[in-house]
Amino acid sequence: MTTKLRFFGISAFEITNTRGTKVLIDPYLDANSASPIKTDDLEKVDLILVTHAAYDHLGDAGKIAKKFKAPVICGADVRVHLIKEGVTPEKLVTTIWGVTAEVAGIRVRSVESRHWSSMAEADGAYYSGPPMGFIVYTDPGVRIYHSGDSALFSDLRLLGQLHRPNIGLINVSLGPLRDSPYLTGEMTPYEAALAAQWLGLDYVIPIHFGTVDTHVEAFLELINNMSSEPHLKAVLLKPGEVFTYPET
Amino acid sequence: MTTKLRFFGISAFEITNTRGTKVLIDPYLDANSASPIKTDDLEKVDLILVTHAAYDHLGDAGKIAKKFKAPVICGADVRVHLIKEGVTPEKLVTTIWGVTAEVAGIRVRSVESRHWSSMAEADGAYYSGPPMGFIVYTDPGVRIYHSGDSALFSDLRLLGQLHRPNIGLINVSLGPLRDSPYLTGEMTPYEAALAAQWLGLDYVIPIHFGTVDTHVEAFLELINNMSSEPHLKAVLLKPGEVFTYPET
Amino acid sequence: MTTKLRFFGISAFEITNTRGTKVLIDPYLDANSASPIKTDDLEKVDLILVTHAAYDHLGDAGKIAKKFKAPVICGADVRVHLIKEGVTPEKLVTTIWGVTAEVAGIRVRSVESRHWSSMAEADGAYYSGPPMGFIVYTDPGVRIYHSGDSALFSDLRLLGQLHRPNIGLINVSLGPLRDSPYLTGEMTPYEAALAAQWLGLDYVIPIHFGTVDTHVEAFLELINNMSSEPHLKAVLLKPGEVFTYPET
Repeated sequence: MTTKLRFFGISAFEITNTRGTKVLIDPYLDANSASPIKTDDLEKVDLILVTHAAYDHLGDAGKIAKKFKAPVICGADVRVHLIKEGVTPEKLVTTIWGVTAEVAGIRVRSVESRHWSSMAEADGAYYSGPPMGFIVYTDPGVRIYHSGDSALFSDLRLLGQLHRPNIGLINVSLGPLRDSPYLTGEMTPYEAALAAQWLGLDYVIPIHFGTVDTHVEAFLELINNMSSEPHLKAVLLKPGEVFTYPET
Repeated sequence: MTTKLRFFGISAFEITNTRGTKVLIDPYLDANSASPIKTDDLEKVDLILVTHAAYDHLGDAGKIAKKFKAPVICGADVRVHLIKEGVTPEKLVTTIWGVTAEVAGIRVRSVESRHWSSMAEADGAYYSGPPMGFIVYTDPGVRIYHSGDSALFSDLRLLGQLHRPNIGLINVSLGPLRDSPYLTGEMTPYEAALAAQWLGLDYVIPIHFGTVDTHVEAFLELINNMSSEPHLKAVLLKPGEVFTYPET
Repeated sequence: MTTKLRFFGISAFEITNTRGTKVLIDPYLDANSASPIKTDDLEKVDLILVTHAAYDHLGDAGKIAKKFKAPVICGADVRVHLIKEGVTPEKLVTTIWGVTAEVAGIRVRSVESRHWSSMAEADGAYYSGPPMGFIVYTDPGVRIYHSGDSALFSDLRLLGQLHRPNIGLINVSLGPLRDSPYLTGEMTPYEAALAAQWLGLDYVIPIHFGTVDTHVEAFLELINNMSSEPHLKAVLLKPGEVFTYPET
């Protein structure tokens, strides 16, 4: 029984479970200079998850959904946008915090994210709604949390207690916005380390970066020195790399 | 001194206080197959509350507001929609978390709900905003909390401490979305039971269902076996039934 | 080393640091009957912060940004509106909870606000998004928190622990909405006093009023009698008055 997580840079992952079901999360590929994989390289997509309406998360979700006739789990604002992109409405499973849906044999729980989700369309339309994190249940005992760019909040403890994610994909960096007025992403390395601790993770994979930067390095050092959490390990994936759980 | 709560299925209630003032909450009636009462059956409406923009909550609010020239307390997104439906702007009392308004002699406090609120209109317009719960003060000492489809969050404890609702209307089920990819509503029965406990309720009425399902049954069993909260009672109302407080 | 905070009524402030850099927050001036200062009276503006899209907060931000070619830190919904008002997109620094940006030499951290942010434009467009509070770092050791009309929430404790604001501008009143169905603003005086305590402030300045009302008076009395927080002082500023930190 093995779940594989392949990182594409920023917040994009392909998760493959034991049965070979492939789930894409926040598939920002073609315009993502960090990603070694482009949409043309994908051979099988069974389910797409979009955490929020932002170019570096929504990414190529519409294009991929159409090509593979794959279902998409997303919020109501992303839904309206994807229909405009030509995705069949029947393929869209709208979700919101607290709701668990099962699609393509994969259970996905939407959980709160403290961030934004909005799109200004070329035709003047403006959509927004609650952003989300996800807990993805890929194989028995495997519970993968994706933070969806959330800022730190105390109810991550509640999520940890109720849902016990064991692998966490946590935003720690600026993502594609370096060389800008921004000094931090939505979580500083210290806040991201608190998030990993409060969630009670076994493995934390830092995300929202293209190339490893000082934020990612500071985060790894914080986790590696967190003596209060002996079970917690940081795993650094560079874009293109794969983490296999359980570790072999 | 008596407050009566009549349940119409899903999240719709008619609350009548001692003076005979009638408050409708989330009046989804005509298209709600569970409701034995339709808009034509209503004889008096003094105030309408809408927790969020969703077809099964907004329901017939516009139609009823126009027919009875009744005021509506709602969020800014619902306001814009209701004006489009032809409701007089002067009848709309916009509210947001923390604010208490008094309309038709009834005090209503808006409290946080962790959910969504959005509408895609036929003309392409898209509205969204913060969804809300309400605490409705109908008679002296009667404080009724309506969750507005919220997911569980820890600040329900804070709401309980600050505002001491004694009757809670808590979403525990899938509502009108059975036969779908959804496995849970916004709260599982266990989460809904935690919500009732954290709010410090005396009575909890499960809502967001049409016919009693396994989620509702599991919730009732959890509450009935919660030995830590001897003051807390679950009251099952089927659509059309009335709960009278205080119990006689 | 001196930071000066000049209050303009409602939630509007001009903050000037030791270097003379001038930051406007929520500059509602021309239509704000409480403000003794109008946009024509401003001589220098280096940075504008807007907490949320509401007429009494967005105020004259667009007009002032254009006149002074000043950058604006705001949410994505306010950004779209300001572009429509004619502000140069390059001057707009979009932010969200958790993110720290440095503009005009001033660091500004966006933090959660539990409120709304939305605009119905004359052309039918509707924008909404997450509202925000700000922590503004004006001089070494000076950390000014602006609540942005937030309701009370427990994570104000977390904000206090992580970011240690020493001056807090906290909404305690109804603002421009007296003579209305509203009995409270987003925080009652008691809730605002809890907010000041949880944030661990040294100075709390009540805001969101034009003339001192019973809510403001009740708040001052609560703070002055809060024996558990000997370091916490309430400072009442009437519109036009200045608070200098450190006190002389």
